[in-house]
Amino acid sequence: MQRINENISRTTVEADELLENTGRVIKVHGVVYRVRQMSGFAFVILRAKRCLIQCVYSPEKAQCDLDTLTEGAAVIVEGEVVSDPKVINGAEIHILHVEILSRPAESFPIVINKKKLDISLDTNLDYRPLSLRNDHERAIFKIQEGIARGFREYLLKQGFTEIHTPKIVFAGAEGGANIFRLDYFGKEVFLAQSPQFYKQMMVGIFERVFETAPVFRAEKHDTSRHLNEYTSMDFEMGFIRDFTEIMQTETGILKYIFRLLNDEYGRELTLMNVKTPVIDSIPVVKFMEAKELIAKQYNRKITDYLDFEPEEEQLLCDYSKKAFNSDFIFVTHYPSAKRPFYAMDDAADPNYTLSFDLLYNGLEITTGGQRIHDYHQQDAKMERRGMNPDDFQAYLMLHKYGIPPHGGLGAGLERLTMKFLGLANVRSACLFPRDTVRVTP
Amino acid sequence: MQRINENISRTTVEADELLENTGRVIKVHGVVYRVRQMSGFAFVILRAKRCLIQCVYSPEKAQCDLDTLTEGAAVIVEGEVVSDPKVINGAEIHILHVEILSRPAESFPIVINKKKLDISLDTNLDYRPLSLRNDHERAIFKIQEGIARGFREYLLKQGFTEIHTPKIVFAGAEGGANIFRLDYFGKEVFLAQSPQFYKQMMVGIFERVFETAPVFRAEKHDTSRHLNEYTSMDFEMGFIRDFTEIMQTETGILKYIFRLLNDEYGRELTLMNVKTPVIDSIPVVKFMEAKELIAKQYNRKITDYLDFEPEEEQLLCDYSKKAFNSDFIFVTHYPSAKRPFYAMDDAADPNYTLSFDLLYNGLEITTGGQRIHDYHQQDAKMERRGMNPDDFQAYLMLHKYGIPPHGGLGAGLERLTMKFLGLANVRSACLFPRDTVRVTP
Repeated sequence: MQRINENISRTTVEADELLENTGRVIKVHGVVYRVRQMSGFAFVILRAKRCLIQCVYSPEKAQCDLDTLTEGAAVIVEGEVVSDPKVINGAEIHILHVEILSRPAESFPIVINKKKLDISLDTNLDYRPLSLRNDHERAIFKIQEGIARGFREYLLKQGFTEIHTPKIVFAGAEGGANIFRLDYFGKEVFLAQSPQFYKQMMVGIFERVFETAPVFRAEKHDTSRHLNEYTSMDFEMGFIRDFTEIMQTETGILKYIFRLLNDEYGRELTLMNVKTPVIDSIPVVKFMEAKELIAKQYNRKITDYLDFEPEEEQLLCDYSKKAFNSDFIFVTHYPSAKRPFYAMDDAADPNYTLSFDLLYNGLEITTGGQRIHDYHQQDAKMERRGMNPDDFQAYLMLHKYGIPPHGGLGAGLERLTMKFLGLANVRSACLFPRDTVRVTP
Repeated sequence: MQRINENISRTTVEADELLENTGRVIKVHGVVYRVRQMSGFAFVILRAKRCLIQCVYSPEKAQCDLDTLTEGAAVIVEGEVVSDPKVINGAEIHILHVEILSRPAESFPIVINKKKLDISLDTNLDYRPLSLRNDHERAIFKIQEGIARGFREYLLKQGFTEIHTPKIVFAGAEGGANIFRLDYFGKEVFLAQSPQFYKQMMVGIFERVFETAPVFRAEKHDTSRHLNEYTSMDFEMGFIRDFTEIMQTETGILKYIFRLLNDEYGRELTLMNVKTPVIDSIPVVKFMEAKELIAKQYNRKITDYLDFEPEEEQLLCDYSKKAFNSDFIFVTHYPSAKRPFYAMDDAADPNYTLSFDLLYNGLEITTGGQRIHDYHQQDAKMERRGMNPDDFQAYLMLHKYGIPPHGGLGAGLERLTMKFLGLANVRSACLFPRDTVRVTP
């Protein structure tokens, strides 16, 4: 019987191996991205896994017809590597042979090989399997990989355990009408708005846990910052002495992520022309103080005492940038009335909670805080809110059978990507966004 | 304004730091797991993040009452570290002070501090937030963390990009009735049965991609190996010369995972009393040859020429173990009729596909194969199957605009965990399983 081992015999080299192969004849594979006809020769730019590769076609050397190298064809190019510090990868390939592996069936309805796509967001999203092939466009998602990876790596190093919790759930964690309903073998169930209940349960098992997974919000908002399905980066930690430990952990995560991006995603940062923010420490202000600060600094009247208006978040971040040179600012002690039933109230003033948001360049990217761990306290808060604890039996087991003081947060992967890259719309930071009208591709 | 940095001032030490603190007075935190009254003293076993910690209570030394150390209480113990090679962590703590942080509100309905839980699976699942606190039970999920982590780490090293694709989708990838339907702002949509369409689209972007995320199957099977929601580990790779490259990559993944488990999850492997399988290479057999082999070896008649019966998968694995000393066996060339519309048929015999399953100790844990990359070929196969290509416009963009030869696989995280640990039911390998009757906790 035949046997399989893990050794794939490679016949092609990678883009970052070109330079070391200077002078040799090698093969690379890629997709024809752009052909630029010059006088007497042509540049054939291939799109490889993570970067472009410059090839030079000259009729004297190449044993193929330039016309066969159509945009979108998947090819194996054989040629001689010639080093040149001015080109990408420090080397180009002088084409000898080309093997065509596949070809598009139709010509492209949009131009993808310009530096930046020159199409509307809607067209971009309509043609997502094609528009993402733009070198600039896909860099967004390589960087997004780094963000999620940094989140996980940092927490693993801090003794957190990764968990996988269900998305089909018996009750919503965030309450309200913003929940998708589902017929589940004749029973009405829901799509998880967050892993909140489950990560709290898991604090009772592993003390510190995290998850990066989709969450679903049936919000009818059609704004540049809302998605109906997004990737939530969640953690929850037990045995906290104070809810600031959660913000300290998030500060550590952000520093780790930006260091990782600098170390391993430099190619994409350059392409996107962004620099990682320098984080030493992050300023922190109480909700009501922030309200008053904005009112005073920007000569505004406070009209809503329970929440920020989007403009206030923007102004607070402007202030943070000006006063502290920080792109980030923590806002703590949000009003109890605006926080979920599991939020721990501040003993010093129970109208406010031991909770926080993290704002980044004008937008909330994280909500977190300490949770109630005492069963009777949780039960009483649910009763005060007119909730029926019997509907939450499964959740309340965690309090009933004992749980240490704990808290955590959820951060939107797409929002963090969006603000870091300075994108105008969160849809641009999502591979296949879902909004109230879009479920395709 | 106050500022937050990432430095949490630690007041307690971790279990694996005990030994180096021999002779010192330190603090640890944990949950009281078991109290064993001896003559004149007591053992107080704490459950920490990842292991147990042995503390010794003696009325002479301890400035607290033993009665306050009730099971399930979250505590900070202060005491002197005494080394002892016979106890876990190589050291125990002689209690001086105890601070109680929280207590259960009710006594436990099940006994969790025995070596193994002595309750039915149903009771275990009903009380999941509690039953998972059993030291043996939670080890399953620490090992599961390692499996998912190994999958990701190996693929990142091989130049794969991690992607996050939508779970609310316009069409099912696996076809059939086994799909959950959802009202999405007045439109009927579905829950993703797999990331199939999206990972294929993403081959066009990054050449090699992977995802670990939930998938949803509305199967009505009530068996020991089916879940209606599970975590699928998926990858898809472009520019393959042959579909064996996919099996080679999976072999590499498995070897990496088991090495990682040995290196970093030894504590849990010991607790579960399992050894990682030795994988050098994995035997591979064609579907029809496997059918004939089983018929001959075990004196059976072939009745179903399109699929395996569960017993046949078991027998084939028994044979693989006996003949090749391998817990794994690849079966290739499944009948076209039983594979999805995107499976690439074998040019040598189009009744069979360039596809495979991986069987592990009697159970299929992976399905994979090469996909059709040519638009006209895909279109024709859909027509032959009576499908309307117009319903799959978004998916077919990937073929229309060109895609290299490619393939990939999906592996169930829970099934792999189950078979590795020798669990009898896949529900035991899922934190909060969903089956046709269970959506709680």
